[in-house]
Amino acid sequence: MNRQQLFELIQRKKSFLCVGLDSDINKIPKHLLGSEDPVFEFNRQIIEATSDYAIAYKPNLAFYESRGIKGMQSLERTMVLLHSFGNDVFTIADAKRGDIGNTSTQYAKAVFDEAASGFSFDAITVAPYMGEDSVKPFLEFPGKWAIILALTSNKGADDFQFFVSSNHTPLFIKVLETTKGWGNTDNTMYVVGATRAEMLSEVRKIVPDHFLLVPGVGAQGGSLQEVAKYGMNDVCGLLVNASRSILFASSQADFAGQARDEAHSIQLEMEQLLLQKGMVQ
Amino acid sequence: MNRQQLFELIQRKKSFLCVGLDSDINKIPKHLLGSEDPVFEFNRQIIEATSDYAIAYKPNLAFYESRGIKGMQSLERTMVLLHSFGNDVFTIADAKRGDIGNTSTQYAKAVFDEAASGFSFDAITVAPYMGEDSVKPFLEFPGKWAIILALTSNKGADDFQFFVSSNHTPLFIKVLETTKGWGNTDNTMYVVGATRAEMLSEVRKIVPDHFLLVPGVGAQGGSLQEVAKYGMNDVCGLLVNASRSILFASSQADFAGQARDEAHSIQLEMEQLLLQKGMVQ
Repeated sequence: MNRQQLFELIQRKKSFLCVGLDSDINKIPKHLLGSEDPVFEFNRQIIEATSDYAIAYKPNLAFYESRGIKGMQSLERTMVLLHSFGNDVFTIADAKRGDIGNTSTQYAKAVFDEAASGFSFDAITVAPYMGEDSVKPFLEFPGKWAIILALTSNKGADDFQFFVSSNHTPLFIKVLETTKGWGNTDNTMYVVGATRAEMLSEVRKIVPDHFLLVPGVGAQGGSLQEVAKYGMNDVCGLLVNASRSILFASSQADFAGQARDEAHSIQLEMEQLLLQKGMVQ
Repeated sequence: MNRQQLFELIQRKKSFLCVGLDSDINKIPKHLLGSEDPVFEFNRQIIEATSDYAIAYKPNLAFYESRGIKGMQSLERTMVLLHSFGNDVFTIADAKRGDIGNTSTQYAKAVFDEAASGFSFDAITVAPYMGEDSVKPFLEFPGKWAIILALTSNKGADDFQFFVSSNHTPLFIKVLETTKGWGNTDNTMYVVGATRAEMLSEVRKIVPDHFLLVPGVGAQGGSLQEVAKYGMNDVCGLLVNASRSILFASSQADFAGQARDEAHSIQLEMEQLLLQKGMVQ
């Protein structure tokens, strides 16, 4: 999926909501634990309940890897279901990968090359610490995206991402300036946390046209209005992620309905924001 | 395994060699492709051929993940074999993980918590970009280690790791200074590439007592003599990794014997270096 197709998907669903599938087996409703694959069953109900309102799903690979091979089977089943939506769903492997070139190529195959690994995500999150040869292999798969960490939503972001150079540039700005030339707006996005929404205007000075993946709305406390105010561009340019606030809206039998209501409520707010900018009618 | 036990292992085998299991199915000898699990069969023969000379094995998770669930099964079998050596082998998951706290906890379970994931490595490599809450969850497992990226061996290391602050500190030094207080010398190591051996003396000024995992000797061109000169401390303090130069010493039926010879040759050089410092007799 390219940038224009992603924008068309946003216009079709009047939403730029991404649902993070941080599907912790210890947090899913207890009545699911009797099914053959409880985490897949949870994901299935969440996806079917929210797919009218979400344009993207972002399985957080840690929550599958922590259950070993069983977890990877839950992920595989989840991806089969997500692919059944075709171009109505964009899929992101939240993996924060990055290593020397020949190794990043293998990580890219792990998420992009269905013949090799069984997985065919549209995008992967990538950590930039190891530099150009650690990121570029992810940009060599046509139609696929690398979503590079710039400014994350957690407290630890202060430790290094705001490390300031002799000419007053913080590291996350240096990351944006350096990496924006490695790919293009059809294969590169950036992670910018909603908990630092005011920083989005700084980010937009450097990458006005790129899509941004914005975590931190919901459980982490970021504001959707602020994110749109500082981060939207003329193709929306935002994928705003919510995970826990949707997945665990209820821990009871009504969890899927509650998740749907929560996703709908976010979508309605997004529709207003898109309307204000004239991107939908 | 703690720091003292690791030193005793080094003394027992007169070696500080780590063998990186970057077991690329497209590079292993063709005659293995007929076996039920070619990558495991390759690893088995490599491990059995080199275990007299290597103290540590470092499966590079990318090369397993790129083959999906089949790859994870090869890794699982490999780990069962490695555990059969008990305290004679230290195991490292080369994974370069790091995410917000609750997610890093899941990544830690994926490699440390056998009951959850089926895997029980001694250590994992960790990327520091997301800061304290992304690293600390890996330090909460007794007897386990986080190996934090400081200065990597690849060309891309120049892009951000040498990003210099207003007081002339490059980022990799800032990472060492900041992270060394998060854990201790029994649960934290650092990656410092052999291709920058002269930088090891800078690193040792900040972390004199920590173990360092040093990639880049062999295929990447680093020198073992230089690494020992600048990096050794009074418990050796080094795990020097070689991957391709051992794994692919031959692509023929004699690959295991050639791998053994290559590992032995490195071990003999290491024994001399340990002798010179009086750490073995």
